[in-house]
Amino acid sequence: MRFALLASAVSKSFVPTKTLRRLHLSSASSSPMAASEESLRLALAEKQATVDAQAEAVRALKARPGSAKPEIDAAVECLKALKVEAGAAARQLQAAVSRNGNASAACSREAFRQAVVNTLERRLFYIPSFKIYRGVAGLYDYGPPGCAVKSNVLTFWRQHFVLEENMLEVDCPCVTPEVVLKASGHVDKFTDLMVKDEKTGTCYRADHLLKDYCKEKLEKDLALSAEQAAELKHVLAMLDDFSAEELGAKLKDYGITAPDTKNTLSDPYPFNLMFQTSIGPSGILPGYMRPETAQGIFVNFKDLYYYNGNRLPFAAAQIGQAFRNEISPRQGLLRVREFTLAEIEHFVDPEDKSHSKFIDVANLEFLMFPRKEQMAGESAIPIILGEAVSKGIVNNETLGYFIGRVYLFLTRLGIDKERLRFRQHLPNEMAHYAADCWDAEIECSYGWIECVGIADRSAYDLRAHSKLVIVPSKKELGLSFKGNQKMVVEALEAMNEKEALEMKASLESKGEVEFYVCTLGKAVVITKKMVAISIEKKKEHQRVFTPSVIEPSFGIGRIIYCLFEHSFYTRPSKSEDEQLNVFRFPPLVAPIKCTVFPLIKTAKFDDVAKIIAKSLTAAGVSHIIDITGTSIGKRYARTDEIGVPFAVTVDSTDSVTIRERDSKEQIRVSIDEVASVVKEVADGQSTWSDITGRYPAHAAAQSNEE
Amino acid sequence: MRFALLASAVSKSFVPTKTLRRLHLSSASSSPMAASEESLRLALAEKQATVDAQAEAVRALKARPGSAKPEIDAAVECLKALKVEAGAAARQLQAAVSRNGNASAACSREAFRQAVVNTLERRLFYIPSFKIYRGVAGLYDYGPPGCAVKSNVLTFWRQHFVLEENMLEVDCPCVTPEVVLKASGHVDKFTDLMVKDEKTGTCYRADHLLKDYCKEKLEKDLALSAEQAAELKHVLAMLDDFSAEELGAKLKDYGITAPDTKNTLSDPYPFNLMFQTSIGPSGILPGYMRPETAQGIFVNFKDLYYYNGNRLPFAAAQIGQAFRNEISPRQGLLRVREFTLAEIEHFVDPEDKSHSKFIDVANLEFLMFPRKEQMAGESAIPIILGEAVSKGIVNNETLGYFIGRVYLFLTRLGIDKERLRFRQHLPNEMAHYAADCWDAEIECSYGWIECVGIADRSAYDLRAHSKLVIVPSKKELGLSFKGNQKMVVEALEAMNEKEALEMKASLESKGEVEFYVCTLGKAVVITKKMVAISIEKKKEHQRVFTPSVIEPSFGIGRIIYCLFEHSFYTRPSKSEDEQLNVFRFPPLVAPIKCTVFPLIKTAKFDDVAKIIAKSLTAAGVSHIIDITGTSIGKRYARTDEIGVPFAVTVDSTDSVTIRERDSKEQIRVSIDEVASVVKEVADGQSTWSDITGRYPAHAAAQSNEE
Repeated sequence: MRFALLASAVSKSFVPTKTLRRLHLSSASSSPMAASEESLRLALAEKQATVDAQAEAVRALKARPGSAKPEIDAAVECLKALKVEAGAAARQLQAAVSRNGNASAACSREAFRQAVVNTLERRLFYIPSFKIYRGVAGLYDYGPPGCAVKSNVLTFWRQHFVLEENMLEVDCPCVTPEVVLKASGHVDKFTDLMVKDEKTGTCYRADHLLKDYCKEKLEKDLALSAEQAAELKHVLAMLDDFSAEELGAKLKDYGITAPDTKNTLSDPYPFNLMFQTSIGPSGILPGYMRPETAQGIFVNFKDLYYYNGNRLPFAAAQIGQAFRNEISPRQGLLRVREFTLAEIEHFVDPEDKSHSKFIDVANLEFLMFPRKEQMAGESAIPIILGEAVSKGIVNNETLGYFIGRVYLFLTRLGIDKERLRFRQHLPNEMAHYAADCWDAEIECSYGWIECVGIADRSAYDLRAHSKLVIVPSKKELGLSFKGNQKMVVEALEAMNEKEALEMKASLESKGEVEFYVCTLGKAVVITKKMVAISIEKKKEHQRVFTPSVIEPSFGIGRIIYCLFEHSFYTRPSKSEDEQLNVFRFPPLVAPIKCTVFPLIKTAKFDDVAKIIAKSLTAAGVSHIIDITGTSIGKRYARTDEIGVPFAVTVDSTDSVTIRERDSKEQIRVSIDEVASVVKEVADGQSTWSDITGRYPAHAAAQSNEE
Repeated sequence: MRFALLASAVSKSFVPTKTLRRLHLSSASSSPMAASEESLRLALAEKQATVDAQAEAVRALKARPGSAKPEIDAAVECLKALKVEAGAAARQLQAAVSRNGNASAACSREAFRQAVVNTLERRLFYIPSFKIYRGVAGLYDYGPPGCAVKSNVLTFWRQHFVLEENMLEVDCPCVTPEVVLKASGHVDKFTDLMVKDEKTGTCYRADHLLKDYCKEKLEKDLALSAEQAAELKHVLAMLDDFSAEELGAKLKDYGITAPDTKNTLSDPYPFNLMFQTSIGPSGILPGYMRPETAQGIFVNFKDLYYYNGNRLPFAAAQIGQAFRNEISPRQGLLRVREFTLAEIEHFVDPEDKSHSKFIDVANLEFLMFPRKEQMAGESAIPIILGEAVSKGIVNNETLGYFIGRVYLFLTRLGIDKERLRFRQHLPNEMAHYAADCWDAEIECSYGWIECVGIADRSAYDLRAHSKLVIVPSKKELGLSFKGNQKMVVEALEAMNEKEALEMKASLESKGEVEFYVCTLGKAVVITKKMVAISIEKKKEHQRVFTPSVIEPSFGIGRIIYCLFEHSFYTRPSKSEDEQLNVFRFPPLVAPIKCTVFPLIKTAKFDDVAKIIAKSLTAAGVSHIIDITGTSIGKRYARTDEIGVPFAVTVDSTDSVTIRERDSKEQIRVSIDEVASVVKEVADGQSTWSDITGRYPAHAAAQSNEE
């Protein structure tokens, strides 16, 4: 069953992976609210029709000579009553639409996001790049705390995946020659459909314009008929599958124009999302900035396979920058033009996708959203991973193993497990060469965001890079073509894969084939002896096969943004006159593990602070000293706001207090123990509650808080 | 004195830093051998002249009717003797030239390099990128062990610089809009001079061709006169300073043609080394892949300064990819088109460049190569850093502090301190805005290679990004120009910095100025009230100044390549029939800390190996298990060849041996202690000799070695 799926996937034509490119927002059509909204729309339309009929009746009555005034008054009263009813129906529908679109929830989500983003920007977690030159859409800098969080996330990724699984990590350049991305399909297919304002030339993503139109219409136009509403919802659901022609037709049908100018738009046409450049000084070697890191692993497959002693399975990994020249980046850190990817390619025998360590994750239970539940309009459900695999919901053990490892990775970073789900790709969104795909989606203020794609990519990428080998026999060609031999050889070597494979087939079936040589201006006859054509493949135990690839691909920036939202909360200051911001980062990802505050500004306390700082440095614990004269409460608030988990306050020359960020509890520890205690909790060897039992609680706990 | 230097540096015009781009090979002209070579050349020329004269005499004698045979024979004998003398003189010169050019040393350096590079490529430390598509010059992948070494070097860099100095690390995109690199000078000046083969269009670096010509001529053409030789040496010394015209004239003078085809060459012209691209879909926003990471810090200066509480000094740091589209990359990993830079920008008050931690490095003593010694043709000398600063050899304490920290960084990585020197820039190679520059140069088979540049960049980069602010007063302009107001406002805002500053000066001196507005086709009079022009600067305690920048800039790939060479050695196998390769990486940078070998293939030993592997993983020690059936000696050799410092051999079920790579010593340790012992030495908490005292030496030590 599983292998049937796999085999058919391989035979299908190529569609490049859009993993990490498309945000999958739950489509409105699967909402359980849809039915009630539809009946309300129907009810409103009926009421409105009654109103219209009654209004017509009133007009007719008034126009008819000799109508009695009481009769007219009664008809007008009736009309008023009907209008009131229609108004009520409209309000009901409005409320239903708002509920479905979550308009009020959207408002509070928007407010929450604004609070997080304000804090992130003010504390330099990130900065729009090149701000002093007005910036460039879709490019962001990580400032000091953001950069530290990112570095911690990547270090943990390396520990959790590369080190723990003995993966072969590689590091390949971003600049990539065209030939590689031609083979992978990116040059031809890695596009989005774009329209241009015909007067100003401003560019828009065609699907964005259509999506915005449909959503706005559905939310605000109460006069929509049920049929019209259903159609718009259908369009929203199908958006990713529309061809250029279909999209263009819809834009025309709906009379959609350029948002800023209302000018007419061009027809949609594909825009390649890769940044193009030229390698070397001659200008004849086109190149691109890589749109994903995976290709760097695939082109090295043969060497890595050899490095692993010609044995499967093995995994290679790469962390690096990827580049996508988005048409109009939106949604802040979630859709950017340059981002860090961390990708794993786990190569496995297509006939044995078992995994020896699956047992370690089989008992994990978490939210999964299989295809069946999505199609039925239901929600994600908690499933035990082992059962998901044994019931065939997840295609195989290796895929299941990585889903489990990704779950552990994300939750250990601090992602809320209630807002994390693994969603299976629907058949229409899955790359055609894939056997099964699951996305780790994290819910944030923008909805459910795809942060990790875990695909059983079958074997496409390797096949794309398996090498076409054309070996003309110069001897045979020389005998037949003499002085023209060189031109024939060159023409044979210049064949592309399709031409070469057609020739190979013809030669095998007929023994010879006509071949047109441009440089000779005529066709020649090529026989079987004259050229050998083959596609290089892997061999394992003399059985010829192409390994399958399981690919977990992590959008590091997206994970970090969701982590920011999941870690953020506010709490009242001590005087309760303001709300203070806190990031509850686990020590693992906190940008700085510890701050050191001399309680008051004296040389004595400053010296103690310096001694502690030195011992923290020696222990490898990142920290800062804050010697500003502001109140200790203000200093705690400042350090909470960038998520520092521990604060050491120097209030004596032999012992100090250590305060934990979220509980605000304080313990008293002697100066020479401080570094080792902080290291112990910061490294995760002990929890805060392990520690509190061992040291006296600080008597004045909380007294210093604002 | 120091500040005079600084001030004059600031006033000079901009030349972009070529830090990390130019290899400074010791120029032949400073060699003490030069004098003796010159006299030999003179002697050879004299002998040759005597030979020519005698040959002429013989010819004349033979031609003269009636010459006596004995007379002719005697003249011929004399000619032969003179030829022998001339031959001896030629051999002497050849030997001297070889000595100076180190021809035999060059041969053994070449052989050594080949041995290192073969090992590196065979064990996948690195791989030419896109090899299956024939590769692209100047692009390399780091394979598994190389990638691990790189990751360890960067982790240590972060620990040694960012963490220990509380630097503000940032992470900015590689894609950079043109406006930023225009301001920094890269768009106009970041070029190399190129010539083209006029028939085939093949491109060459003009200075490379001239350099190759001069070196070959000097080494192989013994007929060169002393004057000619001196001129060629002068050309080599001046190579970096030649203008396009001067280079072109030299190429013509020497009749230099395209190396492959002997076709004539074009005149040299500047080729910009940045990879160009276009940002967004419209094609109207040009961009480049950044050629250095520093600009990302400079454009954020204001925010970072604020983040640091508006206090100086502070340092920002960035690790990231940089891109340079070299014309013809040579020298393997040393000159590539994409590379990892780690840069620090330490911002400091130009009037106070003292450093509170200088005392920590003041007593370090290492090879320095000040300007004076270079000019006098002497060698690098050991200097105590504190003295170098107090004597004014190094410009200031902060610069000195970073020199010391870089020394510690490199030597802790495993760079041989005998082959590391700090060379001061000569006035002609220093960027004109710099106050003082020192390069950490590491000697490898390619000569002395610049791996870290440590520049006191004065204030140029910040000044380049300080913002021109033009604020037209719409009210005043409206009063004067009514309907034309908009055109005047736009023209004022479009002024470049030069125009704006000229206007500012005129307004301040005369109160008004004539201003030509293109869109109006006429000049208007602008008064002081109508526009405010200023350049935004930093303020500190109300004193207006621009901070100085000390910039240590690390070419990570170059450091790693030199580390490979310094760590490589060979030793005979046990049977002495072959040489085995070893990398003596310190545990800090070793790609894997430990291998685990079951001595023979049994389920019992395999299980023990797995238990040990699990405990190593838990301790965070990177390791691999080698269960291949080959002899233990072969397995040791395999692991030595990628520089793994420790090997655990499972030869019993309760204790195992741990072997150290370089000494080949073995100790016996119980299974439950293995992980903690290996961690202790791998983390550098203890040395191997600390450990050996605590555990019994393995009786059979060495017995397993090949």
